[in-house]
Amino acid sequence: MPLAPDSLEPTISIGEILAEVVATTIGSGFSEPIPMIGPFPSGAPTSFLVQCSRIGGSAAMIGAVGDDAFGQLNLERMKREGVDVSGITVDPDLPTGTAFVRYRPDGTRDFVFNLWTSAAGRLAWTDAVDAVVSRAGHLHVVGTVLGVPALWSMVERAAQKVRTRGGTVSFDPNMRKELQSDRKTAARVYAMLAMTDLLLPSGDELLLAAVMPPQNSEEQAIKYLFSLGISEIVIKRGAHGSTAYQMAGGVSHAPAFAVEEIDPTGAGDCFGGAYVATRRLGLSVDQALIYANAAGARNVTRRGPMEGAGSRSELDAFIAGTERITCSS
Amino acid sequence: MPLAPDSLEPTISIGEILAEVVATTIGSGFSEPIPMIGPFPSGAPTSFLVQCSRIGGSAAMIGAVGDDAFGQLNLERMKREGVDVSGITVDPDLPTGTAFVRYRPDGTRDFVFNLWTSAAGRLAWTDAVDAVVSRAGHLHVVGTVLGVPALWSMVERAAQKVRTRGGTVSFDPNMRKELQSDRKTAARVYAMLAMTDLLLPSGDELLLAAVMPPQNSEEQAIKYLFSLGISEIVIKRGAHGSTAYQMAGGVSHAPAFAVEEIDPTGAGDCFGGAYVATRRLGLSVDQALIYANAAGARNVTRRGPMEGAGSRSELDAFIAGTERITCSS
Repeated sequence: MPLAPDSLEPTISIGEILAEVVATTIGSGFSEPIPMIGPFPSGAPTSFLVQCSRIGGSAAMIGAVGDDAFGQLNLERMKREGVDVSGITVDPDLPTGTAFVRYRPDGTRDFVFNLWTSAAGRLAWTDAVDAVVSRAGHLHVVGTVLGVPALWSMVERAAQKVRTRGGTVSFDPNMRKELQSDRKTAARVYAMLAMTDLLLPSGDELLLAAVMPPQNSEEQAIKYLFSLGISEIVIKRGAHGSTAYQMAGGVSHAPAFAVEEIDPTGAGDCFGGAYVATRRLGLSVDQALIYANAAGARNVTRRGPMEGAGSRSELDAFIAGTERITCSS
Repeated sequence: MPLAPDSLEPTISIGEILAEVVATTIGSGFSEPIPMIGPFPSGAPTSFLVQCSRIGGSAAMIGAVGDDAFGQLNLERMKREGVDVSGITVDPDLPTGTAFVRYRPDGTRDFVFNLWTSAAGRLAWTDAVDAVVSRAGHLHVVGTVLGVPALWSMVERAAQKVRTRGGTVSFDPNMRKELQSDRKTAARVYAMLAMTDLLLPSGDELLLAAVMPPQNSEEQAIKYLFSLGISEIVIKRGAHGSTAYQMAGGVSHAPAFAVEEIDPTGAGDCFGGAYVATRRLGLSVDQALIYANAAGARNVTRRGPMEGAGSRSELDAFIAGTERITCSS
């Protein structure tokens, strides 16, 4: 079904809240001291919600931070950006999650994480969480939580509650190949797709999400995913722009913006946050795709996973002033 | 009793292994992205042992790291410096501990730790640990482990084993005032003092270690501590040098070296590592004090908690080329 309107209350997400530290030199690994910059507020769901809120959507986060400076950093940023933090638990024992990132010469990344062994992994369904979920209009799910049993059961419970009251669900697979080899996680991908209204895969995730071998075409995957009840599929293609397929019929495409990439982390989350928010606010698929492309592109021009998230007027200015990439393929 | 000679096999220590990231600007807290440098291999026991080994002592570490780049960083450094790492466990689930440090204008520090909730906190007595402890000649204990029940029981067990075979024990209180208010930890300080041969307090820790109110004199504290069976007390006084008291009689003092301080972290650990190693190698108290002062001073001239640890020839050169601080007090 079409995304629930923003008047039906906030878009929520459940998952990791992190402090991120980024190496400022290109290279491999962390085997010697190198210059870095941080901490940046981080986490796929929080980057998504900050962009969602900046562009005018209502947003609320469910997650956990430690009782430390990195937790404060994240809480302050979300508050400043208008994201409701009442569903965030401050864990008295475990620290806020951390991510160290270094870019290699080939554009791939080396990470050192403290993720599900941080406060983020000990999230539980409290009264405060229940209150936020009970008034949510839309749930956005990032694939990372599918590998974590405790968080997955919270996602299932939240999705059921949100859908029961007429809300909708979006799913950004954010999947790595490792996930396929884990049977339990693969089963959760099926369960997730069955309750998804809007699917937001990257180009190479579409077949993974549809659990199809690579010889299948994009059209076959789309057809199969629509048969599961998904109503809208938006494929993120990086420099090749993005394409939206609607079950009701219609394919839209919007070209990418030409920007100098400083830090690609968070581009997909800002894309999703802008797309979900603008659709819920009543914009057309074509308009939403342009804002989503702009949000992703603007975000990569700043270091940090959500430092480039734009307001509607900032994105309007960005759209007016930035060239599109013309791809022949 | 006098420290067991180095021929009786390695000096060991049990405790935290960390990756440390240091902010390169002076200021308060971590509320916004700032330039940093890291990861540096870190941890009070590892800094101690690296200095111990560099100056010619045999050294072995007991601790735990995660199965990640920060664990590798620490293992590689210790191996390179000749510290036996056979007693180090690689935890399959928990990450290597981390410490973020920022210096304030007044010289105090802001920290964000993932310490006992990292792999470091899940250390257990394995066969590999037993093998290392069974051939150890000296155990060095850093006060931080006194607050952690699981590590404290390992320290007690190791101390008993080492002492039974004629080995000795040193104790660097490294105490914060918070510890005093925790009764269980205070009880462990008593237990620790009862099995200590060499006590290495900082100036302001002497009365804390002796659990004496501040109106008591240094002499009263020393007398009390000797009555517990401690045979040697070396007080670290920073710019005021260091003083060694021996139960057998005799007080020695060595002035501090005049250096430009870049990063004070690790100074006390390098001091201790050099002192214990040189004493175990047969040097006199007077000689050991000079090397210990030099090791601490040289270490603060480099960023990172053990980057300035010196070999014997490096420290000889440092001693020959560095002025002493003359204090009037």
